[in-house]
Amino acid sequence: MASRIFKRWSSSTTTTFIGKQTPSKAHLHQPIPDFAFPRGFLVSGTHVGVKKSPGPPDLALLVSSKHPTSAAAVFTANAFRAAPVTVSEDVLAQTKGRASALVVNSGCANAVTGAQGLADAWSMARAVHNQVPGLPTVSDSEPPAALVMSTGVIGQPLPLARILPGIAAARKTLGESFEHWSSAARAFMTTDTFPKLRVRTFKLGDHECRLAGISKGAGMIHPRMVPPGPLHATLLAAFATDAPVSPRALTAALTYASARSFNSISIDGDMSTNDTAALFANGAGAPGMPELQENHPEFNVFRNALTGIMQELAQLVVRDGEGATKLVTVDVQGALNYEDAHAIASRISTSALVKTALYGEDANWGRILAATGSVPLSKALDPTRVSVSLIPRDGSAPLSLLTRGEPEKVDEVRAKEILVEEDIEIRVELGLGKESAKYWTCDFSYEYVRINGDYRS
Amino acid sequence: MASRIFKRWSSSTTTTFIGKQTPSKAHLHQPIPDFAFPRGFLVSGTHVGVKKSPGPPDLALLVSSKHPTSAAAVFTANAFRAAPVTVSEDVLAQTKGRASALVVNSGCANAVTGAQGLADAWSMARAVHNQVPGLPTVSDSEPPAALVMSTGVIGQPLPLARILPGIAAARKTLGESFEHWSSAARAFMTTDTFPKLRVRTFKLGDHECRLAGISKGAGMIHPRMVPPGPLHATLLAAFATDAPVSPRALTAALTYASARSFNSISIDGDMSTNDTAALFANGAGAPGMPELQENHPEFNVFRNALTGIMQELAQLVVRDGEGATKLVTVDVQGALNYEDAHAIASRISTSALVKTALYGEDANWGRILAATGSVPLSKALDPTRVSVSLIPRDGSAPLSLLTRGEPEKVDEVRAKEILVEEDIEIRVELGLGKESAKYWTCDFSYEYVRINGDYRS
Repeated sequence: MASRIFKRWSSSTTTTFIGKQTPSKAHLHQPIPDFAFPRGFLVSGTHVGVKKSPGPPDLALLVSSKHPTSAAAVFTANAFRAAPVTVSEDVLAQTKGRASALVVNSGCANAVTGAQGLADAWSMARAVHNQVPGLPTVSDSEPPAALVMSTGVIGQPLPLARILPGIAAARKTLGESFEHWSSAARAFMTTDTFPKLRVRTFKLGDHECRLAGISKGAGMIHPRMVPPGPLHATLLAAFATDAPVSPRALTAALTYASARSFNSISIDGDMSTNDTAALFANGAGAPGMPELQENHPEFNVFRNALTGIMQELAQLVVRDGEGATKLVTVDVQGALNYEDAHAIASRISTSALVKTALYGEDANWGRILAATGSVPLSKALDPTRVSVSLIPRDGSAPLSLLTRGEPEKVDEVRAKEILVEEDIEIRVELGLGKESAKYWTCDFSYEYVRINGDYRS
Repeated sequence: MASRIFKRWSSSTTTTFIGKQTPSKAHLHQPIPDFAFPRGFLVSGTHVGVKKSPGPPDLALLVSSKHPTSAAAVFTANAFRAAPVTVSEDVLAQTKGRASALVVNSGCANAVTGAQGLADAWSMARAVHNQVPGLPTVSDSEPPAALVMSTGVIGQPLPLARILPGIAAARKTLGESFEHWSSAARAFMTTDTFPKLRVRTFKLGDHECRLAGISKGAGMIHPRMVPPGPLHATLLAAFATDAPVSPRALTAALTYASARSFNSISIDGDMSTNDTAALFANGAGAPGMPELQENHPEFNVFRNALTGIMQELAQLVVRDGEGATKLVTVDVQGALNYEDAHAIASRISTSALVKTALYGEDANWGRILAATGSVPLSKALDPTRVSVSLIPRDGSAPLSLLTRGEPEKVDEVRAKEILVEEDIEIRVELGLGKESAKYWTCDFSYEYVRINGDYRS
């Protein structure tokens, strides 16, 4: 048996492939001034031993020091949702959207772990709750005001004996500085090559409120996250703002922003069992201001800020996709409705033929068109109205590949000049209506196959 | 600009990947006795210059010498269906399912070629019709009794000036031997590495009828072909039988068999603009027997023979998939209905993570499960009822990976022993009902990326 395996892997049956190196992305994690982070939130990232020790941070804590804190989350639509997904959803239901803390572990997804996995996730949530300053401790029968996220290997039990003491120890490392937020972002990482952390500010009346977010990828990324009800590497994202927002308005904003950010990205077309994006709002940045409701005139200011930071972090996830050498924006315009535009953008973004052509920097519009035409729509496409073009990122003129169904005589030198860039935009105009959708994807490289296909060592 | 391109491709920014060699598949094309081919059909494969000259056969002819001949076809559901698809569908509608010939060219798909493309496809059909012995010539206003298929590059005009004289010349090379059928099968090929030709026999009453089929791949393969009404490399397949079958029964049998063969395979998840499977029946093998109708007791004998040969040829397409080193059967059982089972089998078969794990010969059931759980179904899955196992092809005991939602302690040595084989079967049991569906897919390799990602030279 051993000899059979050896034979298959012997050097006489191997071939060498020369691939582009994936670009280093370390520069995408830049220092952020300490004063830019939302007030009243403490964070940390520590190594507790879920991953091999010694090792990188594998446990992140996020704690609000002002209660009650509003919380909302969207969860994977996968039928095999992991224990932390179920627990976090239950917490939000039981606390009516009031949760003050989040714990995240990387290295083990606590997915397909049965009853023990559920008990473990509840234990994590309770342990974190009991470390939050200013909250009464909870018994085993009360809902903890803490959410849980896990990411990593599926089907392995959580090493709770290391996590629970780790949570207690992590409390002592909580802080508000860039270093604290940066460590927390590192603790989210699995196959990511850099931590993903961004901040922004927005005005509510006289108050300048702050918003921070963390996300991670970098494989099994094609989220469809929905609000509670129904939803490995895995998409995880967490956001904190010191604006005052009601739980209901928080859910509405998160749902809107998720659709236009994390639910519009794909790395490999695979939906994880653990995808979760959570959002906390504690009002510490606008003392005395009542909680924003959906019908408040300034609700959209908050929603737009949230959509912006979520798009930024979603694009970072794609840019750091397994084996990715390019960030590709797919912009489908002229659809009858948003759903059609989104479905076509999603199909183009998951096409292996489109993604390998992008890796090869080849203006192969035939593959884009075949993907476009394969989507069942509410009303059939009219091939004579469809146009495809490449949009240069330097603001120069678009390069038409297909115009209203007629192939253009493509300037291959110009096409190559656009496609050699790290950032690429494909625009498909359907010519049927006024709705549009954007999607972000990456290319498909040798490195992707190596990361996911090399036999586990 | 040239220097920028050079910089990107200079050796200082390349990485080397060591991959398994894709197995040689030449042995899958074996001699077939001349007497095994259906009576009353003449075929040829010639080089006419669609591909570079001198070169391999790029034009196939199939002609029935007995009229009328019943014909049926299923066509791609892609909105950007190519001109030959539209023309073949129109021919069948106008002739009410009576067509005696087929012409196939490889090297140019005649897709996204506008009005000229349509005119070219009609010209091909008429030219072929007028070469069929025993048929009156058709004028430009009459429907020709010939179908057309094209496969190759999208968006390039058909070189009709080489094809039309080629059709006239090809007539002189028509014949009934294995060499003739083999040349025809070669003329179908694009990125295929071997011709795909199979025969079988079946009994109708006292008559032993014969059935032959040709298919090709090897990329942009995820067909969903449907009967007339609404449907690059491309899936093309052609079948001929000397059984007598009515056009209506022929369509019914082809639709049934397509669902269980070509519409249940995926190489890269991409649906082509040209997918077509056609079937001709001339009755030459059962003189005096009336045409089979759907309600005839022996209709199922024919339908089963057809399903068998179509599954065999569909599997050959997958086995020859671009970069494929494995043929993987995905068998989803215990579904509430066929559609649910088929949707899950399709999702598993297109998962980049599952396919790279198969290339890595890694028993990563978590990826299979995540793919299974991501499919919207008529009724939600119950994770505690789902089992996943590997079925060895040598008849030895299945290897359970997950049993009713509980991960098994997997014998990795045994798993490797199964996964190292070229033929692999994954079984997913849903535990909800009695319906099942099979799908065939291949692994995802470095070679796949090379074939589709290397810059056009």
